[in-house]
Amino acid sequence: MTGTDADPNIQERREQLLVDAVVASLANTPDERLRTVLTALVEHLHAFIRDVRLTGREWQLGIDFLTRVGHITDDKRQEFILLSDVLGASMQTITVNDDPTGRTTEATVVGPFFLEDSPLVELGGDISGDASGEPCWVEGRVVDVAGRPLPGARIEVWEADDHGYYDVQYADGRTAARGHLFADDEGRYRFWALTPTPYPIPADGPVGDLLAAARRSPTRAPHLHFMVSHPGMRTLVTHLFVAGDDMGYDSVFGIRDSLIVDFVRARGTEPTPDGQVLDRTWARTSFELVLAPIA
Amino acid sequence: MTGTDADPNIQERREQLLVDAVVASLANTPDERLRTVLTALVEHLHAFIRDVRLTGREWQLGIDFLTRVGHITDDKRQEFILLSDVLGASMQTITVNDDPTGRTTEATVVGPFFLEDSPLVELGGDISGDASGEPCWVEGRVVDVAGRPLPGARIEVWEADDHGYYDVQYADGRTAARGHLFADDEGRYRFWALTPTPYPIPADGPVGDLLAAARRSPTRAPHLHFMVSHPGMRTLVTHLFVAGDDMGYDSVFGIRDSLIVDFVRARGTEPTPDGQVLDRTWARTSFELVLAPIA
Repeated sequence: MTGTDADPNIQERREQLLVDAVVASLANTPDERLRTVLTALVEHLHAFIRDVRLTGREWQLGIDFLTRVGHITDDKRQEFILLSDVLGASMQTITVNDDPTGRTTEATVVGPFFLEDSPLVELGGDISGDASGEPCWVEGRVVDVAGRPLPGARIEVWEADDHGYYDVQYADGRTAARGHLFADDEGRYRFWALTPTPYPIPADGPVGDLLAAARRSPTRAPHLHFMVSHPGMRTLVTHLFVAGDDMGYDSVFGIRDSLIVDFVRARGTEPTPDGQVLDRTWARTSFELVLAPIA
Repeated sequence: MTGTDADPNIQERREQLLVDAVVASLANTPDERLRTVLTALVEHLHAFIRDVRLTGREWQLGIDFLTRVGHITDDKRQEFILLSDVLGASMQTITVNDDPTGRTTEATVVGPFFLEDSPLVELGGDISGDASGEPCWVEGRVVDVAGRPLPGARIEVWEADDHGYYDVQYADGRTAARGHLFADDEGRYRFWALTPTPYPIPADGPVGDLLAAARRSPTRAPHLHFMVSHPGMRTLVTHLFVAGDDMGYDSVFGIRDSLIVDFVRARGTEPTPDGQVLDRTWARTSFELVLAPIA
């Protein structure tokens, strides 16, 4: 009982002494970067608790919330990534790592639905599998900042179907609307996919409860995911967003102006770039993917 | 691609715009306190990411770490509390809620081992069950800040055995070294327990890995847990720590000077306070538990 009646300086000092003790406990961390990150984590975490004067009940609610996030997370569902996404932490991590030259394609969130081992698709092939949606022709080049092609660049693409689900959310575990292909000798790529449509992030778990409590929509702006890699180049994780859609809101804050592109709709009677005549509307878009060299 | 060559102001502005967007998304949260807490959480989380310039790989390591914490947590093991404890967040939450008058017993961490529905023990009874350790007589009073007794106060006590384990860590699920009792008409309590011994917090999970990476000991200073409640009074969660032990280090930062008490050792030939002659050494301690009124 070292306090006296409501002396704010004593209270302040006790709180700061605790921060200092925790930081001191990290002083022998051999990995310098880990020591830096943990020290900053402790300082910001304690500053949060002190700023809001967190109550014991609120702390318990936080523990319970994180426990629910942990328990709903499995091989197919990554609620921690979802949590990071809706708090903007994923996008801030990407933003602080932005290419300072601004000459490469901007990155955005990877999201929780990327899978290793997607199917190989030939150039001009179809990634959609049996996922439902409007056919969409996507083409472009993969280049470096000087505009030189990057032949053989590996391009992973994945997206939701027009019901708003990724294949990993299907009950039967089948693969659809994802694949990988390799750019040709001129760095060109082309494939059939689905015209992106808006969809909600999974809202039936704790992160959905958080969004509901904040009266936030779980909707993501329509997008097609890319992950592009090439030896010697920094791997690019990005989306294409659809121009003309209501881009005012994205539940994970992933929109960047440079990634909003035209998806041009065509009538079913118009021949496709690969010479088909589809008996339904389809769309097309093109985008140049510019990779940065590994620093 | 809105950046130009390495303009720090543009970079700074982009990062701050993102923080602003996330904060703005919380503006319609109906619960004012929730809005305040979430807004501060976002601001401090983003400040952490920006300060350390968190890399994508480090973000992924963080996601993986939290996933492991979530998956090891179950009814019997609460790794999120353990994580909060070793980062000092639990103790900081308690510290910001300290009774400003300083006239009540100081609180400390609840830890991950409290259970509802502990066995009822009569005054003067033994909470230790078949847990191993040196018998220890614990007695005192439960009072308010004016020193008036609080008859019928409920006192929960729990502790580790001298191998360093709580009963919930036993393979067979039996209950030992925990119980609850009620203060008598004069607010007095007395019971047999075990002399506290140092023990490591569970170090075979992700939090143990974190401590190892920081070269921190998982050892907790020897202590006996109390949770004391009475109608109209603020529930007190605290420990008694053992004077004379090496109190330099506690892995969860729970030590407070006012909670360090003498545990006086007695020879087996000396009669106990309840008139027994044990054929082994035993210890005794006493402590006055002072509760605050509910504000």
